[in-house]
Amino acid sequence: MESRDIRHKKAMERRKALVDEKVAEATTEKGILIVLTGNGKGKSSSGFGSVIRCLGHGYNAGIVQFIKGTWDCGERNFIEQRCPEVPYHVMGSGFTWETQNRERDIAAAEQAWAKAEELLRDDSLHLVLLDELTYVLKYGWIEQQRIFDAIANRPAEMSVIVTGRAASKALREMADTVAEVGDEKHAFRAGIKARKGVDW
Amino acid sequence: MESRDIRHKKAMERRKALVDEKVAEATTEKGILIVLTGNGKGKSSSGFGSVIRCLGHGYNAGIVQFIKGTWDCGERNFIEQRCPEVPYHVMGSGFTWETQNRERDIAAAEQAWAKAEELLRDDSLHLVLLDELTYVLKYGWIEQQRIFDAIANRPAEMSVIVTGRAASKALREMADTVAEVGDEKHAFRAGIKARKGVDW
Repeated sequence: MESRDIRHKKAMERRKALVDEKVAEATTEKGILIVLTGNGKGKSSSGFGSVIRCLGHGYNAGIVQFIKGTWDCGERNFIEQRCPEVPYHVMGSGFTWETQNRERDIAAAEQAWAKAEELLRDDSLHLVLLDELTYVLKYGWIEQQRIFDAIANRPAEMSVIVTGRAASKALREMADTVAEVGDEKHAFRAGIKARKGVDW
Repeated sequence: MESRDIRHKKAMERRKALVDEKVAEATTEKGILIVLTGNGKGKSSSGFGSVIRCLGHGYNAGIVQFIKGTWDCGERNFIEQRCPEVPYHVMGSGFTWETQNRERDIAAAEQAWAKAEELLRDDSLHLVLLDELTYVLKYGWIEQQRIFDAIANRPAEMSVIVTGRAASKALREMADTVAEVGDEKHAFRAGIKARKGVDW
């Protein structure tokens, strides 16, 4: 009878062979488009975590934050304080249900998207985070084709992360990687107040 | 006939009323347990993004990274370089299918978990990230009750983020917030090589 250790070793050998085989098959090298969508927690955080991963390897990254941004935002404070080299634009108008003014939203989106286009042309950037971009598409503030063209025509080595709920079918099709973050359970629904340093 | 702008304003007013109502109902203030699980991309990145959000508000955070860590890791480099005040322990043995040695895995997990217990007792920390902890539970390296006790007995103001695939039912039940990150599409399966500064 085999010991647990030996069975474990054999199982891990088989797993390693499978992982090694898959790694050998993936040979294309290029920047990718990642879409992080769904109603669950952690999409924007994941985008910011990817930015610091990128910086940790000595690459450059840029950020445009759509929608959020008028309030006290931990990740923005952090990047401004400790990563002053990172170009960072915030669409200043806040949540659209707070402003209740479509014209002002469009003007703010236009300004933010112009900044995004600038970053998407900059071949010194390894990664561009377009945080909450899905809302710009959803509300039709910027023409979809203009957004897709700028993403498609970016430098070949650049990766792009788009976050936000309700990514469209067209955006998902364009993406190389799509994570659908499901909202299985949320503290807020159990009456727990959104928490500084955790929820924003 | 109403203009699009007026319809938009009315829809946003209704949305704001709903959001305001929900915010008013959430009155409990306490640290929460967040579980980020599923096979999709971005769980660890989300944990690291939350750490910088927390630091951006001037709070302290600590990190224990289970499993990953022997290779060149962008987020670790970044935290070590720019956030030297953050306690950071890496379980050194690498992916379990690489080591193929259960005893060594257990010893490494034991050391890492002892560090986690230390952080979970430290009431100066607003957030503790236990990255890839689900594998420790899955492989049974540390007794589940010991892990659950340390998390349950943490200071009331501390939030904890646990990441990793295949979170157990018991862990999900214990959590305040659970995001199930679905793997809708992945560049790797289209033959694109895992990318430095994006995938690790």
